[in-house]
Amino acid sequence: MKEKIVETSIDLFGKNGFTETSIQDIVEALGVTKGTFYYYYKSKEELLMEIHLRYIDDLILGQKEILEKKLSTEEKLYQIVYMIMKYIEGHGQSARVFFREMQHLNEEHLKDIFSKRDKFRKGLNNVIQEGIDTGEFRQDLNVNIVSLAILGAVNWSYHWFDPKGELDEKTVSTIYIDFMLNGLKAT
Amino acid sequence: MKEKIVETSIDLFGKNGFTETSIQDIVEALGVTKGTFYYYYKSKEELLMEIHLRYIDDLILGQKEILEKKLSTEEKLYQIVYMIMKYIEGHGQSARVFFREMQHLNEEHLKDIFSKRDKFRKGLNNVIQEGIDTGEFRQDLNVNIVSLAILGAVNWSYHWFDPKGELDEKTVSTIYIDFMLNGLKAT
Repeated sequence: MKEKIVETSIDLFGKNGFTETSIQDIVEALGVTKGTFYYYYKSKEELLMEIHLRYIDDLILGQKEILEKKLSTEEKLYQIVYMIMKYIEGHGQSARVFFREMQHLNEEHLKDIFSKRDKFRKGLNNVIQEGIDTGEFRQDLNVNIVSLAILGAVNWSYHWFDPKGELDEKTVSTIYIDFMLNGLKAT
Repeated sequence: MKEKIVETSIDLFGKNGFTETSIQDIVEALGVTKGTFYYYYKSKEELLMEIHLRYIDDLILGQKEILEKKLSTEEKLYQIVYMIMKYIEGHGQSARVFFREMQHLNEEHLKDIFSKRDKFRKGLNNVIQEGIDTGEFRQDLNVNIVSLAILGAVNWSYHWFDPKGELDEKTVSTIYIDFMLNGLKAT
């Protein structure tokens, strides 16, 4: 039931917004009572935090697994970009709730989520730094800013990526990585 | 007064959310009556549309001016990226309202905004295509997807760019453009 509450809420928050969705709306969509909701969650905010934690924890775990593999820096970068794209492809509404409804978390929860987002970003920073250290990447890169540009390009896809569209997440990731590694300029 | 209503609303919508802000909140912050509000706007949604129109129309106009200049493709691209970053630096709350509260526009308005966003994106597509045609850019680029990656990286900066931070919007734009043109890879 906990799982169903989370799934239904992601759907309702994503479609109608966090503020616009009441606990009543959630329990009605599930055909259960408010008591059932309060058995699992103290408040709507606590449920929102669970949705946020799942999103960022899944990505941190996925990144950790990639970083532990013996791969070239280029391949690690590809796998991280693909993982995020794939996650957005499969969890578009979660991404929407994660990035759009964050301001409805309480201060303590928000701090926790920001610190986890920082952790993920630093993991990406480390990959870029590794590429610089091994000589695969240019020596004059600004690691922090380039990392934010990459995350921006990939995260933004929740605004436009259509799982039913012409290109699948694998093709888009491949085009992204080629652009990120080689740039626009003719050589 | 119209200008003041828009400015105050951007601030309140940005900080507290569109749904969370009532017309009463807006007129109280301005020290005027609801009658004053309704003299200028039929509804809160109409005001939201005005905020959206200002954002996208400013960017479309700015892009048009850049595209009409006699510049290399590289320079046009730099100026477009810098224009968006500069706009976000000066209008952070507008960007927040624009990207986060879009779902509160009515269907007709949303269609209008999407068509204007498409226009802006196509302007960027044209710059990339021009670079391919002149031989400045690689011949094998996927114009649409690369354009979305660039817009994502730049638009995303409203999530993190701090006008009081270490790097100003000019420095960030320069790092972005270098990354976009030359990529990560050592040559």
